[in-house]
Amino acid sequence: MKINGVPYRTIWLNDDGWSITVIDQTKLPHRFETKELKSAEDCAEAIRTMTVRGAPLIGATAAYGFAMALRDDASDEALEAACKMLGETRPTAINLRWALNEMASAVRNRPREERVAAAYKRAAVLCDEDVETCRRIGENGLKLIEQAAATKEKGETVNILTHCNAGWIACVDWGTALAPIYMAHDKGIPVHVWVDETRPRNQGASLTAFELGAHGVPHTIIADNAGGHLMQAGEVDLCIVGTDRVTANGDVANKIGTYLKALAAKDNGVPFHVALPYSTIDWTMKKGVGMIPIEERSPDELLKMTGRLPDGSLATVEIAAPGSPAANPGFDVTPARLVSGFITERGLCHASEAGLLTLYPEHKPK
Amino acid sequence: MKINGVPYRTIWLNDDGWSITVIDQTKLPHRFETKELKSAEDCAEAIRTMTVRGAPLIGATAAYGFAMALRDDASDEALEAACKMLGETRPTAINLRWALNEMASAVRNRPREERVAAAYKRAAVLCDEDVETCRRIGENGLKLIEQAAATKEKGETVNILTHCNAGWIACVDWGTALAPIYMAHDKGIPVHVWVDETRPRNQGASLTAFELGAHGVPHTIIADNAGGHLMQAGEVDLCIVGTDRVTANGDVANKIGTYLKALAAKDNGVPFHVALPYSTIDWTMKKGVGMIPIEERSPDELLKMTGRLPDGSLATVEIAAPGSPAANPGFDVTPARLVSGFITERGLCHASEAGLLTLYPEHKPK
Repeated sequence: MKINGVPYRTIWLNDDGWSITVIDQTKLPHRFETKELKSAEDCAEAIRTMTVRGAPLIGATAAYGFAMALRDDASDEALEAACKMLGETRPTAINLRWALNEMASAVRNRPREERVAAAYKRAAVLCDEDVETCRRIGENGLKLIEQAAATKEKGETVNILTHCNAGWIACVDWGTALAPIYMAHDKGIPVHVWVDETRPRNQGASLTAFELGAHGVPHTIIADNAGGHLMQAGEVDLCIVGTDRVTANGDVANKIGTYLKALAAKDNGVPFHVALPYSTIDWTMKKGVGMIPIEERSPDELLKMTGRLPDGSLATVEIAAPGSPAANPGFDVTPARLVSGFITERGLCHASEAGLLTLYPEHKPK
Repeated sequence: MKINGVPYRTIWLNDDGWSITVIDQTKLPHRFETKELKSAEDCAEAIRTMTVRGAPLIGATAAYGFAMALRDDASDEALEAACKMLGETRPTAINLRWALNEMASAVRNRPREERVAAAYKRAAVLCDEDVETCRRIGENGLKLIEQAAATKEKGETVNILTHCNAGWIACVDWGTALAPIYMAHDKGIPVHVWVDETRPRNQGASLTAFELGAHGVPHTIIADNAGGHLMQAGEVDLCIVGTDRVTANGDVANKIGTYLKALAAKDNGVPFHVALPYSTIDWTMKKGVGMIPIEERSPDELLKMTGRLPDGSLATVEIAAPGSPAANPGFDVTPARLVSGFITERGLCHASEAGLLTLYPEHKPK
């Protein structure tokens, strides 16, 4: 997608053919800066510090990190060590594990001297696949927005609520939850997005608002607390969110607070859809509630806030009562019963094992 | 309650016998400062800018503002104008209207020369009554915490989640939702409070955490997004919140986001209690959802954040994507069906018209 008219992806291979550049998302929305990553450890650190974030982009970054590790040492031991090191950077997103498995599969049975080239090739394909997957998610989700528009007066705005950032900057391009919104907007359907601020890291207020604004999509930032009231007041036509892991039964791990919005949607008869690529489905996990590991992040994310001072420089302020501790679980799990449906690259389905298997019959238990 | 060992109320008459001093809550938790209010307009401005906040304290401040207005002009016209001006400072809290009605009733049938003295006397009594009311709410709510403690191993902590600030600094003393917690803590029951940050004004992270910390009550600040996950994980034994208005059927207006916590509590079988003084009940309003006016506050509350820089000075930073608009509804309405019960100065009751009438039979329709 475009930033100030310039088309970007979130991650690209540099001209040297081996290092990569990513958009530094810790600086957004205050500064648009890029960062070069030159080693597996650089890539791991970028994931850990959320220089890159969003399940698909984490996977893509880990893929290149894996390739860089093999440049130093292409042995089986180094390959396993790289998977372990990169895989432990974030515990909740399943794409990370998926991407590393893809990378390992692409090189494991090759002679050592071919491994580096094979890894870089697989990483590039993985990125291109992600773009195509997200584009298809957009096309499939567009149908839901068109349906919502059809129930309204001609020209009346469709109001969509989203949580966190599942936009193009969470992926390589297009996004998951935001892809249908970009397509609807580009097609001339009047859409407006309620952007959950998404505390404590404010990915909504900073990243989602940034990318929607850059593309010209009407949107309004709201406190995470406001969604229930807006749904009660009839101001939300549908919710679309992304996810970090969907289990075989359709439970959805996503940014902390998603569960609360799903409850409010259910209570008010507002459709609640989850957009995801196939790589986000964890077929090995039968259910999500109480099972998916939930990352506990630093209390500082809650207690401090970075922003722009009046002179444009950046500053970090402590916002809470001095001495009070904080807890910071990063994700929650929304039970499948609260989800209206999934939007994937293969189409739309019910949020259940049966629903997922209609789109992915190859995963039917044998 | 105490701050650094010194007992305080949130509002008091100065030695001059007519002006008042309040704790400047816009400076908390960064600075403990007080502010003198010397006119009805000062009092209105203090309410409007949230120098004072919390339904009971708003009422108390308006009461003194009314008395100050009569010092300038004790005519019937001035009396009505003062009620109107002070009553329009915040639209959601019903205590404000109640307090102004109490004040007007106390002076209306008196000769003009007696009105100022009568007004100051009524304002002082109103403050003392608020303290006693909150103390009783504490005693009655304590029973619920004792019940929760009784279901646990001896010495095991009772975890209570609260939203926004309904503590002593929202009242004249003791608080509403926090009063039972202070009493339990003082009685030696091990309690721990999950403090919702409460965006966008952060009254939880700043005020609730501040006053619990000052009194020595164990607590942990969490993002507003986290409560659902904690309830799902069995980490919350009960919720207690305050309210700005309860309608005759038991619907509860409170700080934006309360509704989402009530939904999560219901979904996880966690008791959800609302603490309130009688003055918060709006007997004239049959139901709350869709009926109680919801204050729309400044987008700046969401887009900017004030905190402490490393050198201890205060700074305000802009945190969201530049140019993105924000919406900021201040309250939401929790339907009575999601509320386990009310805690009032007269006891505990079911969240329904029948329940409220068991405690307040004088309001039975004739």
